[in-house]
Amino acid sequence: MTAHRFYFEDFLVGRTVEVGQVTVDEAEIIEFATRFDPQPFHIDPVAAEKSMFGGIIASGWHTCSMMMRAMVDGYLADSASLGSPGVDEVRWLKPVRGGDVLTISSTVLESVPSTSRPDRGVIFTSWEARNQNDELVATIKGRGMFLRRPA
Amino acid sequence: MTAHRFYFEDFLVGRTVEVGQVTVDEAEIIEFATRFDPQPFHIDPVAAEKSMFGGIIASGWHTCSMMMRAMVDGYLADSASLGSPGVDEVRWLKPVRGGDVLTISSTVLESVPSTSRPDRGVIFTSWEARNQNDELVATIKGRGMFLRRPA
Repeated sequence: MTAHRFYFEDFLVGRTVEVGQVTVDEAEIIEFATRFDPQPFHIDPVAAEKSMFGGIIASGWHTCSMMMRAMVDGYLADSASLGSPGVDEVRWLKPVRGGDVLTISSTVLESVPSTSRPDRGVIFTSWEARNQNDELVATIKGRGMFLRRPA
Repeated sequence: MTAHRFYFEDFLVGRTVEVGQVTVDEAEIIEFATRFDPQPFHIDPVAAEKSMFGGIIASGWHTCSMMMRAMVDGYLADSASLGSPGVDEVRWLKPVRGGDVLTISSTVLESVPSTSRPDRGVIFTSWEARNQNDELVATIKGRGMFLRRPA
C-alpha cells in the first residue's frame, strides 16, 4: 500500500490551511464557458459589458473547478482520499474576472469516523476563495472520505 | 429589452422537464481532470483500473459542468436569468464513465417572488442526471434569479 502524507487523523477540526493561489485567465474563462456554460456574460465581451456584471465573469462551475485544482495540489494528491459523495453548499458571492488572484483555503468543520468501516472516516470542510482585494468570492462546504493512518 | 421564452412565471412548482442528453467522452474526462482535478482515477487509466472505481471516472465537477451545459441549452439561454448565487446540494452518486449517455432533468421545487424587487424572483430546482441504465448518477439542488414577465 502506498504511504500518503495525509490520512483521516491529519484533518484536525478547526484548523484552516491556505492550500494555494490561482490566477484567473479571461481566455480560459471564455473557453470553459463556451464548452459548459455559454451564457453571454461568460463568453461574449460586448454582451458582458452591457450586462449587470459589466464585463466577462467566470462560470461558477469554473470557479469551483479552479478551487478543486488548488485542493488537489494542496493536499488531496498526497492523501488517502477515497473520493467524495458530493458537496453541501456552493455560494458564488462576487464576480470572478480575468486577472483576479484567488487565494484558496480549507477549514476542517467536522471529522466523523465510519461506524461500519473502521479503516476510514468522513471529513467535512469549508473551502473559501478570496480575491486580491480580500473579498470572499466563493465558498464550498465539502466532504470527503479518507482512510485512517495504518497502525 | 429582449424578449425571452422563459420568465419567473414559467417555472411551475412540481413540473419536471427533460432538458437534454449528454454523451460522456473519456478523452474529455481526462482533459478536464488534467486541468482541474488530477487525481489518478480521473486521469491515469492504469491507476484507475486498479482503484476502487475499476477505471477512469469523471471528476464530479466535470459532471456538474456537463449538467450545466444541458440546462443552458435546455432553457437558461432563452430565459430572463439573472444568474445564480449558488447551489445547495451536490451529490455524486455513481461513477460517470466514457460512453455513458446522461439524461438531464430539472424539477421546480419552489418559486419565491422577491419582496424587495417586484420585477424578479428566485426559482429553486432539483437537477438529476441518469445514465443509460436509468441509474441516478448525480443530483444538484440549484437556485436561480429570474425576471418576471413584463406586463
